[in-house]
Amino acid sequence: MFFHKQELQYNASPAAPDVFFARKMQEILGGQYGEITVAMQYGFQAWNTKLPGKYRDLLYGIGAEEFGHVEMIAIMIAQLLEKAPAGTVEAAVKSDPVVAAVIGGEDTQHAIVAGAGARPVDSNGNPWQGSYITASGNLLADFTSNANAEMQGRLQVARIYHMTEDKGVRDMLSFLLARDTMHQNQWIAAAQELREEGYEDLPVPSNFPLSDEHRDVSYTYMNFSDGKEAAAGRWASGPTPDGKGEFSYSDGPTTTAPMPPVGNHGDPRLYGTTPEPNLLDKTMGKIKDVVQPG
Amino acid sequence: MFFHKQELQYNASPAAPDVFFARKMQEILGGQYGEITVAMQYGFQAWNTKLPGKYRDLLYGIGAEEFGHVEMIAIMIAQLLEKAPAGTVEAAVKSDPVVAAVIGGEDTQHAIVAGAGARPVDSNGNPWQGSYITASGNLLADFTSNANAEMQGRLQVARIYHMTEDKGVRDMLSFLLARDTMHQNQWIAAAQELREEGYEDLPVPSNFPLSDEHRDVSYTYMNFSDGKEAAAGRWASGPTPDGKGEFSYSDGPTTTAPMPPVGNHGDPRLYGTTPEPNLLDKTMGKIKDVVQPG
Amino acid sequence: MFFHKQELQYNASPAAPDVFFARKMQEILGGQYGEITVAMQYGFQAWNTKLPGKYRDLLYGIGAEEFGHVEMIAIMIAQLLEKAPAGTVEAAVKSDPVVAAVIGGEDTQHAIVAGAGARPVDSNGNPWQGSYITASGNLLADFTSNANAEMQGRLQVARIYHMTEDKGVRDMLSFLLARDTMHQNQWIAAAQELREEGYEDLPVPSNFPLSDEHRDVSYTYMNFSDGKEAAAGRWASGPTPDGKGEFSYSDGPTTTAPMPPVGNHGDPRLYGTTPEPNLLDKTMGKIKDVVQPG
Amino acid sequence: MFFHKQELQYNASPAAPDVFFARKMQEILGGQYGEITVAMQYGFQAWNTKLPGKYRDLLYGIGAEEFGHVEMIAIMIAQLLEKAPAGTVEAAVKSDPVVAAVIGGEDTQHAIVAGAGARPVDSNGNPWQGSYITASGNLLADFTSNANAEMQGRLQVARIYHMTEDKGVRDMLSFLLARDTMHQNQWIAAAQELREEGYEDLPVPSNFPLSDEHRDVSYTYMNFSDGKEAAAGRWASGPTPDGKGEFSYSDGPTTTAPMPPVGNHGDPRLYGTTPEPNLLDKTMGKIKDVVQPG
Amino acid sequence: MFFHKQELQYNASPAAPDVFFARKMQEILGGQYGEITVAMQYGFQAWNTKLPGKYRDLLYGIGAEEFGHVEMIAIMIAQLLEKAPAGTVEAAVKSDPVVAAVIGGEDTQHAIVAGAGARPVDSNGNPWQGSYITASGNLLADFTSNANAEMQGRLQVARIYHMTEDKGVRDMLSFLLARDTMHQNQWIAAAQELREEGYEDLPVPSNFPLSDEHRDVSYTYMNFSDGKEAAAGRWASGPTPDGKGEFSYSDGPTTTAPMPPVGNHGDPRLYGTTPEPNLLDKTMGKIKDVVQPG
Amino acid sequence: MFFHKQELQYNASPAAPDVFFARKMQEILGGQYGEITVAMQYGFQAWNTKLPGKYRDLLYGIGAEEFGHVEMIAIMIAQLLEKAPAGTVEAAVKSDPVVAAVIGGEDTQHAIVAGAGARPVDSNGNPWQGSYITASGNLLADFTSNANAEMQGRLQVARIYHMTEDKGVRDMLSFLLARDTMHQNQWIAAAQELREEGYEDLPVPSNFPLSDEHRDVSYTYMNFSDGKEAAAGRWASGPTPDGKGEFSYSDGPTTTAPMPPVGNHGDPRLYGTTPEPNLLDKTMGKIKDVVQPG
Repeated sequence: MFFHKQELQYNASPAAPDVFFARKMQEILGGQYGEITVAMQYGFQAWNTKLPGKYRDLLYGIGAEEFGHVEMIAIMIAQLLEKAPAGTVEAAVKSDPVVAAVIGGEDTQHAIVAGAGARPVDSNGNPWQGSYITASGNLLADFTSNANAEMQGRLQVARIYHMTEDKGVRDMLSFLLARDTMHQNQWIAAAQELREEGYEDLPVPSNFPLSDEHRDVSYTYMNFSDGKEAAAGRWASGPTPDGKGEFSYSDGPTTTAPMPPVGNHGDPRLYGTTPEPNLLDKTMGKIKDVVQPG
Repeated sequence: MFFHKQELQYNASPAAPDVFFARKMQEILGGQYGEITVAMQYGFQAWNTKLPGKYRDLLYGIGAEEFGHVEMIAIMIAQLLEKAPAGTVEAAVKSDPVVAAVIGGEDTQHAIVAGAGARPVDSNGNPWQGSYITASGNLLADFTSNANAEMQGRLQVARIYHMTEDKGVRDMLSFLLARDTMHQNQWIAAAQELREEGYEDLPVPSNFPLSDEHRDVSYTYMNFSDGKEAAAGRWASGPTPDGKGEFSYSDGPTTTAPMPPVGNHGDPRLYGTTPEPNLLDKTMGKIKDVVQPG
Repeated sequence: MFFHKQELQYNASPAAPDVFFARKMQEILGGQYGEITVAMQYGFQAWNTKLPGKYRDLLYGIGAEEFGHVEMIAIMIAQLLEKAPAGTVEAAVKSDPVVAAVIGGEDTQHAIVAGAGARPVDSNGNPWQGSYITASGNLLADFTSNANAEMQGRLQVARIYHMTEDKGVRDMLSFLLARDTMHQNQWIAAAQELREEGYEDLPVPSNFPLSDEHRDVSYTYMNFSDGKEAAAGRWASGPTPDGKGEFSYSDGPTTTAPMPPVGNHGDPRLYGTTPEPNLLDKTMGKIKDVVQPG
Repeated sequence: MFFHKQELQYNASPAAPDVFFARKMQEILGGQYGEITVAMQYGFQAWNTKLPGKYRDLLYGIGAEEFGHVEMIAIMIAQLLEKAPAGTVEAAVKSDPVVAAVIGGEDTQHAIVAGAGARPVDSNGNPWQGSYITASGNLLADFTSNANAEMQGRLQVARIYHMTEDKGVRDMLSFLLARDTMHQNQWIAAAQELREEGYEDLPVPSNFPLSDEHRDVSYTYMNFSDGKEAAAGRWASGPTPDGKGEFSYSDGPTTTAPMPPVGNHGDPRLYGTTPEPNLLDKTMGKIKDVVQPG
Repeated sequence: MFFHKQELQYNASPAAPDVFFARKMQEILGGQYGEITVAMQYGFQAWNTKLPGKYRDLLYGIGAEEFGHVEMIAIMIAQLLEKAPAGTVEAAVKSDPVVAAVIGGEDTQHAIVAGAGARPVDSNGNPWQGSYITASGNLLADFTSNANAEMQGRLQVARIYHMTEDKGVRDMLSFLLARDTMHQNQWIAAAQELREEGYEDLPVPSNFPLSDEHRDVSYTYMNFSDGKEAAAGRWASGPTPDGKGEFSYSDGPTTTAPMPPVGNHGDPRLYGTTPEPNLLDKTMGKIKDVVQPG
Repeated sequence: MFFHKQELQYNASPAAPDVFFARKMQEILGGQYGEITVAMQYGFQAWNTKLPGKYRDLLYGIGAEEFGHVEMIAIMIAQLLEKAPAGTVEAAVKSDPVVAAVIGGEDTQHAIVAGAGARPVDSNGNPWQGSYITASGNLLADFTSNANAEMQGRLQVARIYHMTEDKGVRDMLSFLLARDTMHQNQWIAAAQELREEGYEDLPVPSNFPLSDEHRDVSYTYMNFSDGKEAAAGRWASGPTPDGKGEFSYSDGPTTTAPMPPVGNHGDPRLYGTTPEPNLLDKTMGKIKDVVQPG
């Protein structure tokens, strides 16, 4: 169960409205790596996990915090929109080019659809969607996904930090940056602990029978481009991070196979193009036979 | 530039058609973590990077391999569909319940839309989409995303491996599993090398001015659930993976802020609901004034 | 069958082109609550209904009108785009900041994709989609959905009315506002008549056996937030609109249940994380047994 | 802020796994009218509202309950999937046709993507998306939208109730049906109270200046189909629900306007087809003049 | 304006319900090339065209017919669903494997969402979307798009024709096949007439100044694969269909250009990875300078 | 297999950055008819075809070229974004209205999400999606689709050519225009050759048994609009392009059928509205009987 408290985790009030920045802030609310994504991602991982205890607690504990971040950013956006341009452009623009840029760059749906409110979309107006989240049931894979989400998220917050000078907005972003720092560190630590405690290991999934894998190509870098510098990377020689092999380097693939023959010509009732030119009448006859036997 | 060679990297022929499995295999072709995703993701990372040399070479070298995997799986699916059910269900099902399951579980668009061919969709028929990929320009974040993609991808290949006993299909999946092993290891190694060579560090982005971050909440686990076990995790005490702090634990948030006041009542021309009951006529008057001054 | 007449229901010509307003007008054409939505929604409700007579006539009669509104708005947009910026921005902007706002705020696909034509998208360029419509087969639910659609639609038309001073555009919007007034009233009246004639009642669906519902929680407001004012609302005491109960108020849930135990550990062939640390080798053995028995 | 408690509002455990029903249950989790929709819809309405007090409390209080319903259903689905078919179809189907139907009707991503877990998608695998929600800032419109959402939601729960005989599942659905009964009644009551307290009225938005609306067509049913029965409905005569007019009936439109002339021929740089046959060379010359003046 | 007549253009009644076939038929209703697509496509082309007269008449005349086909198929689907499985699977399947296939292959939303009604989706449940249509303003391009749409559409109708033996369904499909034959022929004829009357020509757009095109590569086949047979095609030698050149063949590209240098290192406030290892502290200093000058 | 070469097919460097034009150029990269579409479309057609030889070689040979065009445009966009606005709008706009237009018109995700990089989206930020491509297995239909794609693509390139004066951008567009000229011609030639060699013919699919088609309506133009000019077109009289009939003209449909009766009243467990007013109690009784027999 979730319970709501009518307080925020941190201040979320801008010094002044700014509709163009409100649009930019939608990215960290409803974008691929916005707060809705992490809140829902940690939620689904928690609900689906078969591993009770500290890992599930972690997912629940952070997931609920992220729903609170969704709320903080939505409320911030609603305030940034308090002077959303509801009148004609001409009157609003007057002679100030900054206003022109702002008007041109607004999210038009903020006013028309939401009446000066936040929306579950990204900074280009694409609706948030369930396919943004990852919850595979394999926690090492998922914690890596979580670490990535927190990295991408912190990166985006850092970027928009520089796109405003509003002290109120920056204050909230400074708070979110710190929480993203925590969450990045946390998921990396959690992934390490999972491995140390033996729940999972590299390569994910570590308990797929390696004898069923083509081990001869498990640690070879195969270069399908004509650049030569990749041979110098750590991924081209030395022990592998999974501790089970040695990297090697091959300039090009080490295996090859012929294209399979096209095989039969397909069911004629699918009307695909097949290698039998000038045989349409005959084919037509065949189809009728299939369809209307006797 | 890309050049195509009419050979495959590995065998991609099933022992026999299987339309239900063809649908399942769509997941690793056109799903969130299918081969189209990694091919496009590494491509966009390469095209956008500002860091030439071995890292870009790596992206190009692997990206092209992945486009070849797209091809292998598409060709495999086309063969699995060679006996796609183009006739009526009744005739096909006869009395064999296995056939009934297969018919019921097919991707109907395989026959109707593609004429027994592969499609750029996942196993539920959702079209592949550009929002699946990640290419942020920050390579430590992106290599972490790549590692996650290879983990999720290998996990899915391992899962569908058990959903077929077709020796041809399994042979190809064994090859893909091995390549995913390589790529998982490779991106982890590449991320490590990036950090060791000083291009980027934790927390991503590492060069955001820490003085502009609320450092007091950068390393504290705040528990928003009522589970107590998360306090025992490595993310709740000890040094942080970024080497810049010490984890601490708080049962609940350490900060709070009041809900901001709702502020003004919004532009009346947006017709939102505001705290002025029984004042509709007056408001109507005001709006006319705004709209038709004078 | 539908027949087309090369006249419009009302004037749809702007006084002058305005590409930014053309983009805004897309919202009421191809947005969530645009004219395409209501046209298709009433159509599908009519085609699916099992209730012939005046209700189906109503759906057909209004549905066809809405397709005509789609046409009116599309033609209006095409005219607003007659001077779509096909040349470089620099030449167009010159020194007029209003032009800068207009150029910046245009829908770039109007020129590039449609050659100065309307498109089936909303004001942020999101394509119209079938998931916007509602047609459940239950007419009381659907008429409520229709009333909502007409309310949201009229609200959006009223909002964009103030975003232009073009007399031609406003004239058409004044007409659409009036028709939305009619349609709002009409669906509310139709919902009332449905109830009065006994076709359906509250709660929808009214003929689900109430004995199969947990009646003890059917009329209780349970407060999951910490605000106290909701207790004063009409939804917290007094008779319920369905005439079958009395509202009551509870500060918090009246029921609770423990989290179900996680149960078994999942099929090992799905490679989820389960509570068996340090047992990977054993697990691997088990999987091989399952996969390759004997 | 949201806080999580590791208890459920009600029991959510099936008597036995059922992967086909798990897919059906996705509809009420991640569908257009599933629990994610109402949770997010009430959240955004609360965060955006400019009307503090009991109405906002109501939105917060119910919104948090709905997030708890998301959790209940997700956990139920995860349990229904405990025997998700991770092996080959042939072995699973054996000779039981019920198993064949179940296998054929499963959501293949439940096993492949989520490792036997719930997903934020509907029963056809379409990801949940932000465009499902409505939050316009006008509470009478939005409460009508909420009433519709609860009607459609209860309808869907009632339908799937009959698609299972599992006592555990039915027990939870009986609980959800009761809560939907409450929420339907509640939003209808809240809409009535909003009107009675004078915050908003019909037609929404009620304070748009009626003098700017074409009042002559505000209350006329115009029949664009050839059915005659709609004239007998309450929407064709008598007082209108908004209390401001009288319904009338017209067999066909009461207004007409000619198609606007196509106007100018478009910017030649958009290369549209215009009424100047056989003039390509001349046009080409003109374009060069425009593009390369001088 | 559109007017509706409560008759169909042709019979649309099945001999018996068939929920699995109902799902398949969704493809020709709400799929990429279903009737909604052509109806909307011809509509938008008509509304946007700057060429009045017979071509616009054609678009209007056919467009309205297609809306009638949408209706026919929707009504057919609703009848096919008259026995949609609303009860439990087990009872329905009994011992008939054909029923198992049908149940497994149903569109679950037909019953749960639409109450045994048609939906604006394809046979995999993907909602119809505005991005399926083409309306560019250039009629030669668009008529080619229309010809393609009618070809793909007729192909799909032909395919599903064989997937049923229901005489009523086949009767309607036979009618639609004939109309698709007409429409294929018609768009090809219309494209020819456009060219003959000089409105447009190949290559589209024909009046782009050819001197601004790199004419040296306008007619050369460049082979980027290692197959050699394409050199034998009509596209590799002889006159070109636009009548303005001669095809030639090159095994590989005829031009090449070096990768552009990566250029500057990007704005540090975007935190991309740039070629300056071990310089993080210095960079951090720079960023602060940019952000907080003075 | 695909191999990558770190060269481009042609120069792809702008004279100067231009973030607004970068957004426009996204259309020809990730739009409905952008380079990703043709690259993937030709790829899937090649992988699925059952016709080896010159036609498949053609698909492979051109498909790989198009992947190279994807790369060229992505790299061009990345360079156009080298001065993406990472700081505040106010500082950037200064007093230059051109800058205001550019800032207002940017794709905000270019900076926030991609760190000044290209993205797999169109010029309105909609992600590229698999439903843009066509690969039916019938090569005459698909080559027509390809011809259309190249026409639409060349049209869009021609349009954006006029939206910039940057010599570097125009140089690349001139190259792409020439390649589109080639590909338009090529697919038209390939379609002709397919017909001449007897692989397929009009109407597609040509080998559907014509006796199963309602031939009486196969060549009649039926006018569903009130325009009269379409009767004068080539599609209304004379021989048909498929060589199998004569066009005729009918002002309106030549056939009609009554609406089918609504039939039974639906399964009561779907709770649809049916023609049985005031019978709710009785119905409820019936439902209980069905659900809980005995």
